[in-house]
Amino acid sequence: MTKKYPIGILGATGMVGQRFIQLLENHPWFQITWLAASDRSSGKLYGEAAKWRLDTPLPEQIAGMTVSPADPAGAPKIIFAALDAAFARELEPKFANAGCAVVSNSSAYRMAPNVPLVIPEINAAHLHLIEEQPSRRESGGYMVTNPNCSTIGLVMALKPIEERFGIERIMVTTMQAVSGAGYPGVPSMDILGNVVPYIGSEEEKMEAETLKLLGRLEGHAVTPLAARISAHCNRVAVEDGHTESVSIQLGNKLGRPVTHEDILAAWDEFRPLAGQELPSAPDLPVQWAPQQDRPQPRLDRNRGKGMAVTVGRLRPCNVLDWKFTVLSHNTIRGAAGAAILNAELLASLGKLEPVAATAAGA
Amino acid sequence: MTKKYPIGILGATGMVGQRFIQLLENHPWFQITWLAASDRSSGKLYGEAAKWRLDTPLPEQIAGMTVSPADPAGAPKIIFAALDAAFARELEPKFANAGCAVVSNSSAYRMAPNVPLVIPEINAAHLHLIEEQPSRRESGGYMVTNPNCSTIGLVMALKPIEERFGIERIMVTTMQAVSGAGYPGVPSMDILGNVVPYIGSEEEKMEAETLKLLGRLEGHAVTPLAARISAHCNRVAVEDGHTESVSIQLGNKLGRPVTHEDILAAWDEFRPLAGQELPSAPDLPVQWAPQQDRPQPRLDRNRGKGMAVTVGRLRPCNVLDWKFTVLSHNTIRGAAGAAILNAELLASLGKLEPVAATAAGA
Amino acid sequence: MTKKYPIGILGATGMVGQRFIQLLENHPWFQITWLAASDRSSGKLYGEAAKWRLDTPLPEQIAGMTVSPADPAGAPKIIFAALDAAFARELEPKFANAGCAVVSNSSAYRMAPNVPLVIPEINAAHLHLIEEQPSRRESGGYMVTNPNCSTIGLVMALKPIEERFGIERIMVTTMQAVSGAGYPGVPSMDILGNVVPYIGSEEEKMEAETLKLLGRLEGHAVTPLAARISAHCNRVAVEDGHTESVSIQLGNKLGRPVTHEDILAAWDEFRPLAGQELPSAPDLPVQWAPQQDRPQPRLDRNRGKGMAVTVGRLRPCNVLDWKFTVLSHNTIRGAAGAAILNAELLASLGKLEPVAATAAGA
Amino acid sequence: MTKKYPIGILGATGMVGQRFIQLLENHPWFQITWLAASDRSSGKLYGEAAKWRLDTPLPEQIAGMTVSPADPAGAPKIIFAALDAAFARELEPKFANAGCAVVSNSSAYRMAPNVPLVIPEINAAHLHLIEEQPSRRESGGYMVTNPNCSTIGLVMALKPIEERFGIERIMVTTMQAVSGAGYPGVPSMDILGNVVPYIGSEEEKMEAETLKLLGRLEGHAVTPLAARISAHCNRVAVEDGHTESVSIQLGNKLGRPVTHEDILAAWDEFRPLAGQELPSAPDLPVQWAPQQDRPQPRLDRNRGKGMAVTVGRLRPCNVLDWKFTVLSHNTIRGAAGAAILNAELLASLGKLEPVAATAAGA
Repeated sequence: MTKKYPIGILGATGMVGQRFIQLLENHPWFQITWLAASDRSSGKLYGEAAKWRLDTPLPEQIAGMTVSPADPAGAPKIIFAALDAAFARELEPKFANAGCAVVSNSSAYRMAPNVPLVIPEINAAHLHLIEEQPSRRESGGYMVTNPNCSTIGLVMALKPIEERFGIERIMVTTMQAVSGAGYPGVPSMDILGNVVPYIGSEEEKMEAETLKLLGRLEGHAVTPLAARISAHCNRVAVEDGHTESVSIQLGNKLGRPVTHEDILAAWDEFRPLAGQELPSAPDLPVQWAPQQDRPQPRLDRNRGKGMAVTVGRLRPCNVLDWKFTVLSHNTIRGAAGAAILNAELLASLGKLEPVAATAAGA
Repeated sequence: MTKKYPIGILGATGMVGQRFIQLLENHPWFQITWLAASDRSSGKLYGEAAKWRLDTPLPEQIAGMTVSPADPAGAPKIIFAALDAAFARELEPKFANAGCAVVSNSSAYRMAPNVPLVIPEINAAHLHLIEEQPSRRESGGYMVTNPNCSTIGLVMALKPIEERFGIERIMVTTMQAVSGAGYPGVPSMDILGNVVPYIGSEEEKMEAETLKLLGRLEGHAVTPLAARISAHCNRVAVEDGHTESVSIQLGNKLGRPVTHEDILAAWDEFRPLAGQELPSAPDLPVQWAPQQDRPQPRLDRNRGKGMAVTVGRLRPCNVLDWKFTVLSHNTIRGAAGAAILNAELLASLGKLEPVAATAAGA
Repeated sequence: MTKKYPIGILGATGMVGQRFIQLLENHPWFQITWLAASDRSSGKLYGEAAKWRLDTPLPEQIAGMTVSPADPAGAPKIIFAALDAAFARELEPKFANAGCAVVSNSSAYRMAPNVPLVIPEINAAHLHLIEEQPSRRESGGYMVTNPNCSTIGLVMALKPIEERFGIERIMVTTMQAVSGAGYPGVPSMDILGNVVPYIGSEEEKMEAETLKLLGRLEGHAVTPLAARISAHCNRVAVEDGHTESVSIQLGNKLGRPVTHEDILAAWDEFRPLAGQELPSAPDLPVQWAPQQDRPQPRLDRNRGKGMAVTVGRLRPCNVLDWKFTVLSHNTIRGAAGAAILNAELLASLGKLEPVAATAAGA
Repeated sequence: MTKKYPIGILGATGMVGQRFIQLLENHPWFQITWLAASDRSSGKLYGEAAKWRLDTPLPEQIAGMTVSPADPAGAPKIIFAALDAAFARELEPKFANAGCAVVSNSSAYRMAPNVPLVIPEINAAHLHLIEEQPSRRESGGYMVTNPNCSTIGLVMALKPIEERFGIERIMVTTMQAVSGAGYPGVPSMDILGNVVPYIGSEEEKMEAETLKLLGRLEGHAVTPLAARISAHCNRVAVEDGHTESVSIQLGNKLGRPVTHEDILAAWDEFRPLAGQELPSAPDLPVQWAPQQDRPQPRLDRNRGKGMAVTVGRLRPCNVLDWKFTVLSHNTIRGAAGAAILNAELLASLGKLEPVAATAAGA
């Protein structure tokens, strides 16, 4: 693949937009050719419009690009969207209607019946939902979403277990990093030496998204997993990496009691993308940490270049069946990396071609 | 009460020992007359032996006291103990056998059948267990314990609910402050920008202690509450104050569905020590925070001079019945303050008198 | 003094406004009768308009007060002002012209030639400048200011030295707490695990204010101290308390080399307000910490109820003469407490009476 | 260079030892063949003996190596030493006497007259001092040291200035990361929400080492730079990266006033290792950050793979001439990376060959 797909970023100046830029530098398949942000930034050079907050340098070529207005005219046909929900609600359909493949990290359309909410390792089949979108027929454009940053780590840990044993109940308490709230995001006065036991709408998102992701595509829609789930979401003084304490009650798919070894094997053998050679897919998506005090965000968030999820502390639960800790990088696997992996999957399935063709023909 | 009880502190140089000294400065009933610590400190002035880590000044009178060896000879008959479990296992019975009332914050004997594990608001009746201790008959001495710092907040929140409605299942995830690990305790490299999802033996303690505290004294022992409980314990970058995300399944004591208002009323009307005038008892031991993002350790840990517990975010739970957040100050209500309140209760019940008498007669 | 002065707070909902409310609860001389804030808050109950961020409860009586518009009509004649500089520039003269004593924490008029910049322990005599203000003659009203939060600690430590020995050069590097930036203030993404080596205009303020505070009132204006001063200002991950590394070159007032003991004595004997019985004045305004690793913000900021400054680590400097560390509580001694102490001084000098009289007569 | 030098690490389990292992994984010239640590670890597998604290995985090949006792018998002839000073004082000469090139990060012999204290970009010529060491003549072995972690950033920023303009006075205040204190190192109770204005012996080291590094080799010893230097050293809540506020008074080498542009040019044109192709040398060792609020540890410490130093905020100083901020990664450029770069320089100068030859002949 010598020619790269030209791609654009909607919401390029925010924290997730910056991660897109960082992760797409030197990407073998995609090349950033267009950056858009709010009216305040539009027309400026990106290097002036964005307050770059990552610890690798802002690529010079990106710094020199002019920020475009958030309008499909002039935009490439593949769009990564990192918009606040309110903007996403208006802009993403506009780009889809204009023939773009909108690969979105926003929450606006995740739960829409005809919008796929996808993690490639979990439910690639749900991508068929794009054919249910009116824009797909009219312009070739469509929307695909990835889940909330707190949902992804949980679902990655649950999927191998659900497949083999079934899951009936899920209890999760999160300890989430501040980068999940964007920039300026959480005031330092709120989080230094503190815990904030509330993140707006986060518990509702985690609960609904998890069941859709683990659900089955049946006809024209996804039937969510028939399990009960309850989330407690907390913010802690961590820069990057969401830690989650999880308890689960298993189903009876196996036909015999599930052992510690069964669960470790389920995680270890979970390689649903093996052989597909998607550039951002980690070799081992769910990694077991054998130490009794792991995973920890500072030490484990960068596994698999931030795309692997780490599990640890598997032990029996007195209330449900098993309990464990899961950790994932919230702005890589939980946001920009998730969308990029979705786009890689779409590319490998040929779902970017019609769009590109449309684009080429335009 | 113009004459104060002379009291001693075992383990006076550690973090909890320092809190004892801070909280007992100007205490109306108790006066520190004796301080003991490890052999390394014994014989030194307290001001030289201890690295004072609290943000109020070390009282000058204490700074000038000589640290005694940890031996009952010469010690007063009321002893607050703040020892590591290994030392407590050996020393606490030694002091009880020598006729002392040992009011301990250590875990060593909390689960012993004839040792009361007491929170005055919760289970004052369990104090009768001291009569089951051989030392009590022989020398008048005995041991009384308070629970782990992570247990106390939870049990304070649960007791009013258990009394009125019953509790069948408890799921709790803690986010615990570093001061709970003493000094030097948690290395800064482990906790800056990090979460450690493991605290040695903490989950086992929380689970066992909670059921004993909520249990019933029957004959010569406590029958633990017949409920299922599961704890996930995490360390976070907070100086003081343990935050806990709790889900519970209720019993059927009320005979009708329990409402949000029922639970708020149970907490609000919970004043088991009203009228007893124990100096350290907060007027309102379980305080409701109506804001959606509270309680928070930095803002709420000092309620009731650190002796009140704050609850918030009560809402339905999809897996059990209700979920909420509870916060308590881990080194005040969760450690030194807990022991002091136990001693105040013992004094008000006349249980310090025989000891003092024995002491006077010696 | 059985009748209290009625006072108002301009900018009551911000961080410093909240500190005013906290520190004035139960103040023996002043009573809050009026609260004003931006148009957004005006008309609401204070409890709804303000996001209370302090760890003591919002007083109920204050919570129930209605926030007034920022207009002198209806305001009491003593006003504590905690406004951003831009608002202060417009509003403070408006209140002074309307006959109010405006005791301001803002930077807007600190360097104005006819506005006193005062710390009661340092330069009470500068208060005479209020008589140079046109509003004073016309309505009785005037403006008095206190310095920047980073200046106060430095000047408190320097004044006893300057008085006895003279000071020719001052080099200071600050490590400032986030509360100094207000709320929301510093984004957590900027300060967790980080240092920000820049605070807008802070170095210029420190340099100019220090010399004015240590200057002499001569005729109708203050002649600044003839010393050279250079400041480096940094933000660190501390909630409250500014720490400063200071080097100084002394003058020759003493006529012989200055010793370590000379400086300690200068600090220890510095009690310029002794006998004046101002309620917020600490007994010992500059406190020496003998430990080699002190002062520290977490342990020392609350000395003297947050109104004392702590100095430590005095040692020779290879470049200038001496170096030391100074710490002060930035939102108490460095902001709200500073203004309250200024108002107490004004009250003790009878400078609030004419205003009150005017008020009574209006 | 297809065959790699076999190297050993003394003190392999500590924080700096771990950085050596991390940085030497895949190093083109050096290969770890021997790991030694304290008696407690000796004989164990490295994976069991060390508590790995870095965020990249412990290389499997290293995890499986057996930790050797700290004895030259059986050790390779090139030794990286990461020992506490007390152990270094005894062990480093022992290895040098046994014919090893000891490339040390310890402070024990930095100031010894016949031991080179070297930063390759700064004073490579000082390496000639190894010929003054008795062990060199007897066994071929010698000791070479790199400076303290807080010294390196400072000296890297000063050298280009000293060369062109001369420097007469240096005032520096550090804000140092906790990783500089090793593990467990700084207790979290000491640093969360806090600043500790003291690091044992650090100021003395910075002052002495800086002048030796900037000094001239004359005959058999180094004449330190004739400048006055004063350091204030503070610990802050940062994981990695030392930030320093620096003021300097220049000399008169240029013969005309030095401008802002002159200094920026001195930094930008400072490439003393250009063309030498040392694998760990950054292309641009001193990097200018143009933003007014940089450098910051979280954002800039990893420049040049942690081997570049970042300078910013250059502005006039009222007391000396200029002031600026400098930042460097304390465990990479300031410790393990410094020693590795020294070894690379030694290799390129052929100074590892005689040692290796001796080794081969043994």
